[in-house]
Amino acid sequence: MATDTAVPPVTAGAPTPEVDVPALTTLLDGEYAEIRDLVRSNLATYASVLEDAEELGVDEFRERVRELVVEMAATGQTGMGFPEEYGGGGDIGASIAAFETLAYGDLSVLVKVGVQFGLFGGAILQLGTKHHHDAYLADLVSGKLMGCFAMTETGHGSNVQALGTVATYDADTQEFVITTHGEQARKDYIGNAAKHAELAVVFAQLEIDGTSEGVHAFVVPVRKDGKVLDGVTIEDDGRKMGLNGVDNGRISFAGVRVPREALLNRFADVSPEGVYESSIDNPNRRFFTMLGTLVQGRVCVGGAGINAAKVALAIATKYAVRRRQFEAASDTEEQLLLDYGMHQRRLLPLIARTYALHFAQDVVRTQLHQVFSGIKDDEHTRRELEGRAAGTKALGTWHATRTIQECREACGGAGYLAVNRFAALKADSDIFTTFEGDNHVLLQLVAKGLLTDYASEFEDMDQLGMVRFVTNLAVETVIERTSVHKLLERVRDLLPGGDEWDQEAGLLDSEYQLAMLRFREEHMLAGVARRLKRGIDQKMNPGVVFSSVQDHVIAAANAHVERLVLEAFVDRVESLEDGDNKVALRLICDLFALTTIEADRAWFMEHGRLTVVRSKSISREVNRLCRQVRPIAVDLVDAWAVPVEMLRSPDLLA
Amino acid sequence: MATDTAVPPVTAGAPTPEVDVPALTTLLDGEYAEIRDLVRSNLATYASVLEDAEELGVDEFRERVRELVVEMAATGQTGMGFPEEYGGGGDIGASIAAFETLAYGDLSVLVKVGVQFGLFGGAILQLGTKHHHDAYLADLVSGKLMGCFAMTETGHGSNVQALGTVATYDADTQEFVITTHGEQARKDYIGNAAKHAELAVVFAQLEIDGTSEGVHAFVVPVRKDGKVLDGVTIEDDGRKMGLNGVDNGRISFAGVRVPREALLNRFADVSPEGVYESSIDNPNRRFFTMLGTLVQGRVCVGGAGINAAKVALAIATKYAVRRRQFEAASDTEEQLLLDYGMHQRRLLPLIARTYALHFAQDVVRTQLHQVFSGIKDDEHTRRELEGRAAGTKALGTWHATRTIQECREACGGAGYLAVNRFAALKADSDIFTTFEGDNHVLLQLVAKGLLTDYASEFEDMDQLGMVRFVTNLAVETVIERTSVHKLLERVRDLLPGGDEWDQEAGLLDSEYQLAMLRFREEHMLAGVARRLKRGIDQKMNPGVVFSSVQDHVIAAANAHVERLVLEAFVDRVESLEDGDNKVALRLICDLFALTTIEADRAWFMEHGRLTVVRSKSISREVNRLCRQVRPIAVDLVDAWAVPVEMLRSPDLLA
Repeated sequence: MATDTAVPPVTAGAPTPEVDVPALTTLLDGEYAEIRDLVRSNLATYASVLEDAEELGVDEFRERVRELVVEMAATGQTGMGFPEEYGGGGDIGASIAAFETLAYGDLSVLVKVGVQFGLFGGAILQLGTKHHHDAYLADLVSGKLMGCFAMTETGHGSNVQALGTVATYDADTQEFVITTHGEQARKDYIGNAAKHAELAVVFAQLEIDGTSEGVHAFVVPVRKDGKVLDGVTIEDDGRKMGLNGVDNGRISFAGVRVPREALLNRFADVSPEGVYESSIDNPNRRFFTMLGTLVQGRVCVGGAGINAAKVALAIATKYAVRRRQFEAASDTEEQLLLDYGMHQRRLLPLIARTYALHFAQDVVRTQLHQVFSGIKDDEHTRRELEGRAAGTKALGTWHATRTIQECREACGGAGYLAVNRFAALKADSDIFTTFEGDNHVLLQLVAKGLLTDYASEFEDMDQLGMVRFVTNLAVETVIERTSVHKLLERVRDLLPGGDEWDQEAGLLDSEYQLAMLRFREEHMLAGVARRLKRGIDQKMNPGVVFSSVQDHVIAAANAHVERLVLEAFVDRVESLEDGDNKVALRLICDLFALTTIEADRAWFMEHGRLTVVRSKSISREVNRLCRQVRPIAVDLVDAWAVPVEMLRSPDLLA
Repeated sequence: MATDTAVPPVTAGAPTPEVDVPALTTLLDGEYAEIRDLVRSNLATYASVLEDAEELGVDEFRERVRELVVEMAATGQTGMGFPEEYGGGGDIGASIAAFETLAYGDLSVLVKVGVQFGLFGGAILQLGTKHHHDAYLADLVSGKLMGCFAMTETGHGSNVQALGTVATYDADTQEFVITTHGEQARKDYIGNAAKHAELAVVFAQLEIDGTSEGVHAFVVPVRKDGKVLDGVTIEDDGRKMGLNGVDNGRISFAGVRVPREALLNRFADVSPEGVYESSIDNPNRRFFTMLGTLVQGRVCVGGAGINAAKVALAIATKYAVRRRQFEAASDTEEQLLLDYGMHQRRLLPLIARTYALHFAQDVVRTQLHQVFSGIKDDEHTRRELEGRAAGTKALGTWHATRTIQECREACGGAGYLAVNRFAALKADSDIFTTFEGDNHVLLQLVAKGLLTDYASEFEDMDQLGMVRFVTNLAVETVIERTSVHKLLERVRDLLPGGDEWDQEAGLLDSEYQLAMLRFREEHMLAGVARRLKRGIDQKMNPGVVFSSVQDHVIAAANAHVERLVLEAFVDRVESLEDGDNKVALRLICDLFALTTIEADRAWFMEHGRLTVVRSKSISREVNRLCRQVRPIAVDLVDAWAVPVEMLRSPDLLA
């Protein structure tokens, strides 16, 4: 694409690499190329759904999306995560990869798939036992049996432990009685509920003989032959900002009776006589173990966000090498948008961050696959996976929101027309930052894991518990582990310059970049621990202490996740054989690393790790890298292999 | 509202002021309370349009919006800016205030009003002469005659000077022949074009005897009795991200003939024989003078963005004092969202910035009123107004996009339901950052004004001209004027601490805050001038130089506008009588000033105006201010007096 450059690139250093686009696609698709290509092919086959989303009324579009999900299911695309004996593909990693790729298309289809196969199907698979698998899996994998995942309530989304729905055991009839107590306890925003679900996996407080055993999941029939069952009330959530192909609704239960076997009993069961038993003694730990099985949803949504961002960037980048505006460098021809420095600054770091998140997603997907396929499944790995899934989900979905917005603006008024994709991308992906866990709450979860060092004795803490925990000795460990002295010692040996490493190392040395992000993470974490401890030592209300430290908690978690993301990127680049594609990826890895440091350069200066001179030179280096990436920008977005039908934008890309 | 605080506020210093909400509303409404109240009352009367926007199909909704605009016109609300003799209100300031307030409601209605009365009507009024006024104004003020403003083309939005539509004068028939040359030259995204406009004000290159006289505006009939006229082709732009009550379309002209009088001839005319004459000799200056009359559109959109942000903040803030989640401070009750430090950090600085922009908008509206009412209308004031309008528009509309997004996320899943307003607010306001001038292009316009010191000899420069201008002596003046030495001298006398003012002055001293923003602005401006000059001195291609400096140009303009905004806020607060409302406003003025400095603290550290210690203390002070503002947050949003019907959100605010 170097030929469309009206202005000669002003670059120092290495020549522009010649990107081998198909090879880069192969690298990005990785071991899941086959399933990704199947999804790409399905997306192209059903491309008309993008128009349906605009043209059909809500009711019709919901039916269209349902149809399409069932048709895709028949290709094997959506059932990859289920055991082969039930018609699935027996490959959890592939199911995530399929879902990620599906995010190139209409996101109502994506979310309907997520609800049916991820949330509903995942709950049956992960929380149920053979009885439930035999009863439901084959039909749900084919899409014949539609279900919903009824966890969130009007009054409680983030704080699932406080749900208001109750399931009381009646030993006389060996049934559970499901009851919604008040409007705040109704299930809300439940996908598939308003129209299509026949079954619901309902999360409710289990009560036996007046004793509460905490939140458990039950399979509850809610509809038969399209008719809502007695005792069940379903309202439609109505029109939403986007995702109007998904039928979200509210469900209330007025003493609905289900048999004892309706309890998804992998982790806990109730005997016919009403004796509660669980392999996990601690109720908090049991609760988090059950939630932990749902980590897959977060990995899926994070990956979907990253891929939605790719669609936006592909359009905006390709447009920016076609659209000219203003004679900036010549009296006879207007200048291409992407030859403006500001336009490069707007788009190219977002491309770099998308690559970074893509490789981070590879890591979390692999870890998920290993844990849930039993390849490497221990407590510590599970906790680590939970943290990584939460963090990648938060960063990936915020990245999507930010990127889609920037790309829309970068396409001007044309970006506002529905045919050019941003309307749907923006409206549909908006909720990604909230569902499967509000991003701020997820980052707090990440921070909790770091503060407790994923120690199993602390994993069952709720938020208040976490704050109180700082009175414990463990926080001293965090403070000690993360002391600046030790940090610097570790870094000094890695980098040239000794104690002056942060001034002497090359900006493009990935060890330097990583050292900076590691220093920030550990320093922030120690700061949070110290602040929490100081507040508690001063006998302040733990809630007040937490509130006043909360922005540091979020920042520390963010720093941790960004470090993981950079590590994933650097590791991947280093693993490659030498060649132009490696040079290209190293270039955007540098761009990601330096824009990340630049964005928080105030913090680095405040904490003595960046001089004024070096801070300015980082900004200059970012500008230089942008100019260097400019000629390969289109190759970089082409390598994502978004089907051309999914880009639409006939006037922008013509 | 202090009573809903579950957690005692941790504040040092002054007690919480008791806000007198009605008095604060009176202060905010200012001299335009009457028209604002009329608009509020109309919004309440026609509140059902918010539901219509969701429920009606595109065609029906367009008709509904048209009806409603005509009905509002009958109340006098929309015609305030036209002379009384044509049925208008004869008060330009009031017309802006009415438009701003209308942004509390459905934004299709707002934009339809803007197209009809602002763009179309404004062009007839400002670019036409008595002949045109007599012919059209009375009917367009009543809404009987609908028109459109056909400036933007598919190929040219920002660079209006390069439009492709041509108007050739035919002296034989004394007519202009309007022709669209190629698809890139068709008028595009034109509001009112697809369905309702009977007339178009068409911007085209005027050609007489093969000589081009530059872009001029012509009144061209495009439709009669609903039927598109011969030679005119109109396509529908189709569905958009939002604003689907506005019928945007594309217009092409195949040699359409209009009489000589169709030229809007206030600034230039063509004699029957085909002699071109204009009171403005320089063609560039003439062009910018004509565009300058359209500054009103920018002032309107900026104000609308600020008020759309108010709606979002009112909902999110009121929700945050109702919604509880997690037992953070107590074992028995969950904590209110707004008692979380992070939630305060997310919402309260946005409230502060909204107030700041509100007062800045007051200044630009007043200036516009003075210029266009002939109270104070000289070249220099016009140029200053243009810069201020462009800058406030850019900051106000970006603020809207950012604020609406943050508020949606702060309301979680509920924020995603259409009934809770964010869906429409987000989709409809998205294009504000682009229309009436792309924000980046507008900030470049601001920078141009600063670099040329609004000197009349440079006002007619295009972008390439601006870059070449740096070879001129004037850039030396900018560098000299903005030299750090002089800057510091001026500041030193104002603040305690002498040369150490930036370390000694109190953080809450508004002179300190202003000095910081002034220093940043002038330092950045000098930097841009120096960089441009250096590039040119090195004989680099001006386009390459500009491209490499562009991010500095944008940053300098942003710094300039933020300084103006803070000045407006500080001036307004100082003008008030002592009392609790003044205390409250001073509090949020401090919050705005310090969050603005904090957001750019890296720059201040890099340029020696902020020590590490002081930078950290600013962040602490911002947190403290947030806690202090927390108890009055609801009062602050209530004072905007958004009609309760416009908040909807029955479940969020119950």
